[in-house]
Amino acid sequence: MAITPSSTTVHPGELVQLVSPSNKIYFVRAIPGGDLQTHRGVVRFDDLIGLPWGSQIFSHLGSTFFLLQPGLADIIKETRRNTQIMYPKDIGFILMTLNIGPGVRVIEAGTGSGAMTTALAWAVGTTGKVISYEARPEMQNLARKNLDRLDLASNVEFKLRDIAEGFDEQNVDSLFLDLPNPYDYMAHVQRALKPGGFFGCILPTFNQVEKLLLTLYQYQFGFTDVCEILLRYYKPVHNRLRPTDRMVAHTGYLIFSRSILSNEKITFPQEDSEANHEFNQPD
Amino acid sequence: MAITPSSTTVHPGELVQLVSPSNKIYFVRAIPGGDLQTHRGVVRFDDLIGLPWGSQIFSHLGSTFFLLQPGLADIIKETRRNTQIMYPKDIGFILMTLNIGPGVRVIEAGTGSGAMTTALAWAVGTTGKVISYEARPEMQNLARKNLDRLDLASNVEFKLRDIAEGFDEQNVDSLFLDLPNPYDYMAHVQRALKPGGFFGCILPTFNQVEKLLLTLYQYQFGFTDVCEILLRYYKPVHNRLRPTDRMVAHTGYLIFSRSILSNEKITFPQEDSEANHEFNQPD
Amino acid sequence: MAITPSSTTVHPGELVQLVSPSNKIYFVRAIPGGDLQTHRGVVRFDDLIGLPWGSQIFSHLGSTFFLLQPGLADIIKETRRNTQIMYPKDIGFILMTLNIGPGVRVIEAGTGSGAMTTALAWAVGTTGKVISYEARPEMQNLARKNLDRLDLASNVEFKLRDIAEGFDEQNVDSLFLDLPNPYDYMAHVQRALKPGGFFGCILPTFNQVEKLLLTLYQYQFGFTDVCEILLRYYKPVHNRLRPTDRMVAHTGYLIFSRSILSNEKITFPQEDSEANHEFNQPD
Amino acid sequence: MAITPSSTTVHPGELVQLVSPSNKIYFVRAIPGGDLQTHRGVVRFDDLIGLPWGSQIFSHLGSTFFLLQPGLADIIKETRRNTQIMYPKDIGFILMTLNIGPGVRVIEAGTGSGAMTTALAWAVGTTGKVISYEARPEMQNLARKNLDRLDLASNVEFKLRDIAEGFDEQNVDSLFLDLPNPYDYMAHVQRALKPGGFFGCILPTFNQVEKLLLTLYQYQFGFTDVCEILLRYYKPVHNRLRPTDRMVAHTGYLIFSRSILSNEKITFPQEDSEANHEFNQPD
Repeated sequence: MAITPSSTTVHPGELVQLVSPSNKIYFVRAIPGGDLQTHRGVVRFDDLIGLPWGSQIFSHLGSTFFLLQPGLADIIKETRRNTQIMYPKDIGFILMTLNIGPGVRVIEAGTGSGAMTTALAWAVGTTGKVISYEARPEMQNLARKNLDRLDLASNVEFKLRDIAEGFDEQNVDSLFLDLPNPYDYMAHVQRALKPGGFFGCILPTFNQVEKLLLTLYQYQFGFTDVCEILLRYYKPVHNRLRPTDRMVAHTGYLIFSRSILSNEKITFPQEDSEANHEFNQPD
Repeated sequence: MAITPSSTTVHPGELVQLVSPSNKIYFVRAIPGGDLQTHRGVVRFDDLIGLPWGSQIFSHLGSTFFLLQPGLADIIKETRRNTQIMYPKDIGFILMTLNIGPGVRVIEAGTGSGAMTTALAWAVGTTGKVISYEARPEMQNLARKNLDRLDLASNVEFKLRDIAEGFDEQNVDSLFLDLPNPYDYMAHVQRALKPGGFFGCILPTFNQVEKLLLTLYQYQFGFTDVCEILLRYYKPVHNRLRPTDRMVAHTGYLIFSRSILSNEKITFPQEDSEANHEFNQPD
Repeated sequence: MAITPSSTTVHPGELVQLVSPSNKIYFVRAIPGGDLQTHRGVVRFDDLIGLPWGSQIFSHLGSTFFLLQPGLADIIKETRRNTQIMYPKDIGFILMTLNIGPGVRVIEAGTGSGAMTTALAWAVGTTGKVISYEARPEMQNLARKNLDRLDLASNVEFKLRDIAEGFDEQNVDSLFLDLPNPYDYMAHVQRALKPGGFFGCILPTFNQVEKLLLTLYQYQFGFTDVCEILLRYYKPVHNRLRPTDRMVAHTGYLIFSRSILSNEKITFPQEDSEANHEFNQPD
Repeated sequence: MAITPSSTTVHPGELVQLVSPSNKIYFVRAIPGGDLQTHRGVVRFDDLIGLPWGSQIFSHLGSTFFLLQPGLADIIKETRRNTQIMYPKDIGFILMTLNIGPGVRVIEAGTGSGAMTTALAWAVGTTGKVISYEARPEMQNLARKNLDRLDLASNVEFKLRDIAEGFDEQNVDSLFLDLPNPYDYMAHVQRALKPGGFFGCILPTFNQVEKLLLTLYQYQFGFTDVCEILLRYYKPVHNRLRPTDRMVAHTGYLIFSRSILSNEKITFPQEDSEANHEFNQPD
């Protein structure tokens, strides 16, 4: 079952995003007989069921709420409230670059609150599989609850394990680490990834990137990219169009690399060539 | 069939990415008996078949080529060589924000050379559907060829049509326009999208964004976001870590909005609040 | 007299920047017998006079304050607290681009709280002159007070005037407008600037830039640049080096142009060429 | 004498900027009897002398050249063609932050081709002094020639010296290093700067910043800032307004710090607080 089935009206039990007049967002399951209590009044779920998405409804105090089907980005932002999690701007690019789509088998560590797990589970679909490692039972429980709520848990195999003990899997297509010390696990990563597989990770500081680059080099990973993504919002007012005053300046550096097979020292093509990232001219 | 099956070795007929010593990238199908002619020598496909991904192979002149399974981002960059197409940095964020995943039904116009179509087709999988409109037969042919090559054409319904005549579909989950004048088609968009559906588009100039915002307002679209994504690469050298000297400064402004149902004038929550995009604090 | 004379110790009457343990900044004149009252205790100025810059001193409650000679950027940031003023990142680039240095004669409008006036007055020195127009008496008074405090008022001629009535001067070297509607005054600007003179302005929205560009074109200004400056700070911690989490995303677009003499329609060199702003290769 | 005297017409011997139809820029001295040879024809200086700035003139082949008085930023960009030098975007902010204005005494090392020297010499004026150290005689000669050409050499004291041997000066107001290894000279810097003086430097790689931050900490420098400046140009076309396609992504990290006096270990205010760089609210 998808996060957001292709329904046009609210069915019993579906996930609903309610937006208050002050833009406060609530995620609820439209269970018959249930309700949402807010300081702007009570919204009864029986009033929602059967309504088209995009409708406006009223609380018992007369406040207008918008009734939306949540998207993946909305859900991930909401997950974020629980702990320091990843941003959609980074997740979207990671999914693309690690080639995560229907049918793919991917390892993730650590699970955290499950925001990245949600995106992975949704993208690989029922024909793929996410194997998600986490050493802290309470975080795994939180993530499992988040995924259950979205009917995505069946796409995920949760493992309670410190990855210093290694991964159980071999030949996975992709592997993503969201841990402070990925450089300590590259031997494990190499054994779990299929040859040529996609490796990615996110790191907040330059110093961690420095250490990881050295380790990637030692383990003969190749085609390494380091980048960062800046997302700038504009005030959507047609006649006073301008960027917002403030923005998120940093979430993390993204590092991507490929596992390469060799018994001897490899010389990679000029990896630091800027030309790699310029695609305007045919070569 | 996926773009990149979970194979660990090269099977006959699989899509292969060969990387030359000067980082030139070739995409080929590993057809038995075939070969690739380069100025660094000939690579025979019979030499590739059966090798693990990530191996190094040699041309008949002794040049070393890396043998990689291509990822979606690689494929899209390669498509780009044919015409002005979209960048992975934008596509990843669009897929997230328009909620494109397995099972989703999405309209796209225009098809162009099929880079965005590729990403959409891959993300919706065999259980979803991309309906892609294009008015120029030669572009549709090019896109169809690109999608066929990736075994993704069966996820796409190509339509040769100027969308000024409207869309055939109703109640699609999401709709993406990559056209210079999206503001001319918002009535059609509203009829094709399901209530509350996800609308997105990319526009290069500020003046186009200005016009679109006004039109979105007139058609009572809500929850509108305007943003841009900057991707900055670093030279991946551990002891001389620094950004590349130059970068892509602009591809386009991204605009996202939701179709809202109403018979009367709507007052949306404070849409231009920056708080919408800050998720650090619980509200 | 300079803002910050080349003294090595605090002289009576000099401008002093005191920094509290919580990084709160106070600007005071070290008048003999005076003091600064803070919630961390009283700092007596007689204790400061004669101390070397960079010393630490104590309030009567024992809190440590740092004793610094203020720089122009510090002073401008402090001015900013009174009203919405310009940022050092923009001012520095504007001074460079408008060629503001010792001996230059420059018009500014409006004066506002005098932050830009301060920078201009300081840069032109006693051999130059700033002519600063402002229509609101209370703002002019505030600015005059700010400049007096810094001993810079003698470099400035304040004029209380709506510039819709024109400027008194002719043949000034440079002219800077910080007003919402610069496009309404370009005829006046052209008359006040010397031929080939430097024109600059700052505008928060795209729509204003659009109107100004059209007007500059109509008045045959040339060599026009539009740009924006992003300043990103890093946390200065050597072993956890990373950008700050948030940043200022927008202050304003900067527009620079040159007044050109002609009796007929001018064709300028390819102004929108990116090559103008790339200086790596000799041409 | 200023770089650009407040003349309104071209006087004999003045520095002139000629712009060709293809936007090629020439800097020449308008010496009577002289000329400029270009592939678009010869421009005779006797034709220029006496013309107003901003005029258009013709080569003997009939090509139109614009006649402009050069600004500091133009001159610095032109200097840059000789060697890898600093950008106006960085220089403007450095001048502001290091408090460089009329009357200031500042040390710079190394001189290089003299681009930064030019900006410093111009900003300190005839009442200030730039002391510029350089170990390579040929670079010093080049810089001296550049400064002579601009009539700024009298504001500068050139010293041919490896700064590993220390500086001759004491109690200078500000000190700027443009060298790959500033961390090797901090003891010398501390002795040359007046107490509380302004220190700045520019470094291309993260690894250098890391080492400098550690050294600044060891030498008890305080109020340290690390930042970078991104300058983004727009195509100045009013009805197709958009950023240029490409931009300079990196020149260097800027580091600023203050020399602090103490005989014991200092605890600075929370230096890494982002609040330092947010000035919207009074504290």
